[in-house]
Parts: sequence; C-alpha cells; structure tokens
Amino acid sequence: MQTDADFLGITAADAGRSRFTVIERLARLDGRLYGGAAIAVSIAEAERVTERPALWVTTQFVSTVESGEEVDVLTEVLAVGRRTCQVRVTASNQSGEVIFASLGATGSHRPDGLTGVFEKCPTVTPPSDADPWLSPFSGVAKAAGLDQHRAPLRKAGFTLAVEMREPAVLLHPEPGPGRICLWVRRADCVAVTPAVAGYLADMVPMSVGYALGVVAGGTSLDNTIRIGSFVDTEWILLDLRPHLAAGGYAHGVVHVWSEDGHLLATASQTASMIQFDPSHIPGLAEAPDGSPT
Amino acid sequence: MQTDADFLGITAADAGRSRFTVIERLARLDGRLYGGAAIAVSIAEAERVTERPALWVTTQFVSTVESGEEVDVLTEVLAVGRRTCQVRVTASNQSGEVIFASLGATGSHRPDGLTGVFEKCPTVTPPSDADPWLSPFSGVAKAAGLDQHRAPLRKAGFTLAVEMREPAVLLHPEPGPGRICLWVRRADCVAVTPAVAGYLADMVPMSVGYALGVVAGGTSLDNTIRIGSFVDTEWILLDLRPHLAAGGYAHGVVHVWSEDGHLLATASQTASMIQFDPSHIPGLAEAPDGSPT
Repeated sequence: MQTDADFLGITAADAGRSRFTVIERLARLDGRLYGGAAIAVSIAEAERVTERPALWVTTQFVSTVESGEEVDVLTEVLAVGRRTCQVRVTASNQSGEVIFASLGATGSHRPDGLTGVFEKCPTVTPPSDADPWLSPFSGVAKAAGLDQHRAPLRKAGFTLAVEMREPAVLLHPEPGPGRICLWVRRADCVAVTPAVAGYLADMVPMSVGYALGVVAGGTSLDNTIRIGSFVDTEWILLDLRPHLAAGGYAHGVVHVWSEDGHLLATASQTASMIQFDPSHIPGLAEAPDGSPT
Repeated sequence: MQTDADFLGITAADAGRSRFTVIERLARLDGRLYGGAAIAVSIAEAERVTERPALWVTTQFVSTVESGEEVDVLTEVLAVGRRTCQVRVTASNQSGEVIFASLGATGSHRPDGLTGVFEKCPTVTPPSDADPWLSPFSGVAKAAGLDQHRAPLRKAGFTLAVEMREPAVLLHPEPGPGRICLWVRRADCVAVTPAVAGYLADMVPMSVGYALGVVAGGTSLDNTIRIGSFVDTEWILLDLRPHLAAGGYAHGVVHVWSEDGHLLATASQTASMIQFDPSHIPGLAEAPDGSPT
C-alpha cells in the first residue's frame, strides 16, 4: 500500500488505460464512489502516464457507481511542452457511461523557477493533542451543537482508511465563519502524496455547514486541487475556508499544510448543499439534552 | 453588444454547436486567443445550451489560435438533474485540433437554498477616485518599482475592451503579499455578467509577480470560476489573493465583488510563470531614474 496505485487499487492495462474496482476505501458511507477517490485516481494516472508531478487537476462528477463495480480509466495527453503536459482523464463504467471526467496539468518544476508562499499557516495543537473525529459527520454534528460522541456513527467506506482529529486553534491568521482546521492522515500512516491529498481534502461542504451553523451535507459537482512542492509528511492540516453559498450551491477552498507548516496544495470545490433535519439522521438524533434542535 | 454572445461574437449553428472569430477584444497583446475569452465563451455556451445559470466552469488551455481565425465550439450536456446540469465544452480550430476544453455545471438556485457569504470585502476608494491602468502590464511594471506612466504601453487586444483602475485600499480585511485590488469594467460600461466576470478575472499571475516583487508574467494552464448570485454592477472589484509559487508554477484566487460589496464569484488559476528582465520589455525600460533595476 506504499504507492498511490496500491492505495487506489489501480491496475494499468497499457500506456493510457487502467482500471480500478470500487473497494470499500474508495466508497462513500452509502457505498457509492467517493469524490476524493475520483480526483486521487485522476492525479495518480496523470502522473503515471506523463511521468511528471501533477500541478493542477479538476474532476467533474457526472454519474456514480456502486461498491464492487469496475471502472475503466482513459488518460489522454492533449499537449506536451518542454516542461508541462495538459492531460484529460475519463472514467467509465462497464456499460461505457462516463462516471467522472478530469482536466489537469503535470510538469517539471524548474530549480530556479519562481517560488514563494503567500498564505499563513494557522497555529494549532499537534495531532497527538487533538480530538478524534470518526468521519466528516462528526463535524456536521458538532456544527449543529450536537454531541457526536454520544452516538458514534459506524465507520464505513473511505472513513476506514482515514484518521481525523480536530486540534485547538491557538492562532488563526485570518479567522472567519466555517474556517476550521483538521488534522488528517492515512490510517496506515503512509506519507501523504498529491493524489492522497486530493483524496483527503474533499471536505468543503462540511465547512459550509459549519459557517451557517446548520446540519448540512453536500454533493460535489467538482473537486479541484492546485499543487505546490510536497515534503514528507504523515499528517496534513486541512485549513478550510468556505467562500459563499447561494440558492443551495456552495463554494470554498481548503489549504493543505504539512506537519511542519509547508503549504503543499490548495483544493477547492463546488457542491449542491442539502440541509438535514438532525432528528432524521441516525446517530445524530440524540442531542446532549435528549432533544434535537 | 448587450448580450454575452454579442460581446464574444458567438454565432450559434445548432443546439450544441457554435462558432466565434478571434476578434481583437478576444486576443492577448500578442494577437493570440486570450484565456479570459475562452472561459467566457465556455460560460456563455454552457448557459445558452442548458438554459440555466452557470455555477462553476474550469477551462483548460491546450493550444492557441491567432487573431482572425475561426473557432468551433461544441457544448455537450453530460448529465441533467432536476436542478443541475454537468456540461463539457470543447473548442477546436478549423483543422479540428482542440484549442481549449472546459468542464462545468449550471443549475437553478433554490429560493430557500442555503445562502451566505463567508468572506469580507476590502474597503477601497471608488472607481471615480482610483488610478487608471492601461493593462495588467501597468501592474507588472508597478510591482517592480518602475514608472508605468513614463512610457505607456500601446493598448491592444482585450485591453481595448476593458477599463482598469487601482483604488487606494483603506482597509484590507486580510492583508498579505500580492493582495491587491483592482476596479475593472467593460469599456462600453455594460453590466458585468458571469461570462464577462470570467473574461475580466484572468489576472492571478500578475498578483504573483506583485507578491514576489519581480517583473513576471504567466501562461495560464487553466482558468476556473465559481459563481454565486449576481447583482447589477458596472464595475467589479478584483480582490487578488495569490497562494503560492513553486518551481516556476503559481496558483491563486481572486474574489469578484460588485460595486456595493456583494461577493459575485471566486476565480482561480494555475500558471506557468516567466520572470522578465525589465530592460528587455518595450515601454518598461525607462525607470524613473533612467536605470532599470
């Protein structure tokens, strides 16, 4: 499970063709393909086919596919420059229907190329001193003032492969609504790659619920990641920054920091939001005082 | 010139097919297709074909095309939901080669859907009291401490259709490197639509040069826009937030505000950066003291 292909269960058929099965860690809690897995496969395949690190990838969610199904992945290099490749990745089910489509670029960094970081990392307690979360639903519950620990949700799907902890924020450089921080790592403690950062960063809708103080989830329309230079890190800090919600659609960004405060990437997404009645969600029904609000 | 199709010179052939010519206002200073024009065409066509407002669009730049050439645009609706459509737009030259490819979604806002703004608008002087810029190169020169007014650049390409002014920033909610603000409008003063916001917002690379204090430009690998609810506004405030540069590639976001401080959209992009020797740029060679640095 050291490589992205191992983690994502990708088997390559030929240069631009590969395949994966929707195993449990690639699924959402409802058993369907997890959006973070789709962008992770796109990043891993863009890097494998072009033999260059990924710079940016956008993944559009067209349809869905159930656990256990096989997905075919076609990676096309649309343009090759001296340093940069433009790539398109298209994933289809066994009937040939498009499941997700990605655009992106890979490229070789120039040692003397322009380099700098223009964002500040929040000061937070380390992962060893942070509160465990079972899944993003722990945050959804907490945003609504419910006690997530009273009735923990069953771990399933991608949450089995992920460990999440919420640190105390000692100093946020730019505090604002929904700007929460989370430590996240692979449950098997393998260092985070760009593909796995895409897998772990799919959490903007949760931060939108937080910003509005409601129990809400989102269906992603896309996941996008913009990648800097990576350093070896087991935990990443997701520094969530929701931007806006309008008429039930929401947008936001998440800065991805290494354990030692290096800005690895920024991820963004647009989601269709759904507000829930907390009393209808299993495991969230029991508020601390017994009466969900 | 009231509609996006008029401004962009789009003629529709049938439901999903249309065409435009690279007229001067759709070109860069070097006469090739301007990236902002490509995302604007993608937004306008996604909205026309689905008859719903755009929510998010990402445009990937695969190749380029010269002034005067014709471009064919194919808009495919990949999925149709009750509210949301997933769309793909592919633009090709007359040899059938892909020029740019876009992914995006359109959708109908729900009147009772989750709504909120989680970012703060900078307080700046109004457009009537702001310094005129001839083009983004005015900012490139200024970032390097050169006097842009001594040797103004010739207006050409998209800069003929755009008016830019730099206000004084009275209060920035989150100041940082390269976080500059610009008032921008159509030169013909027509209200800004989502498509025209995409056209005007293509300026992240300029802000990266600002953040690093160097004379630099960028070739966009993509333009992305995430759209909220629009209000009637002639000027928009581009609130630029460069994120990082690594090995010659840079990423950042720009918040797009209306004249009265409503967050209309957020746009982001990844670019391949090139640092220039100021003495080699016509019109930038004459620094205030005669010796470019």
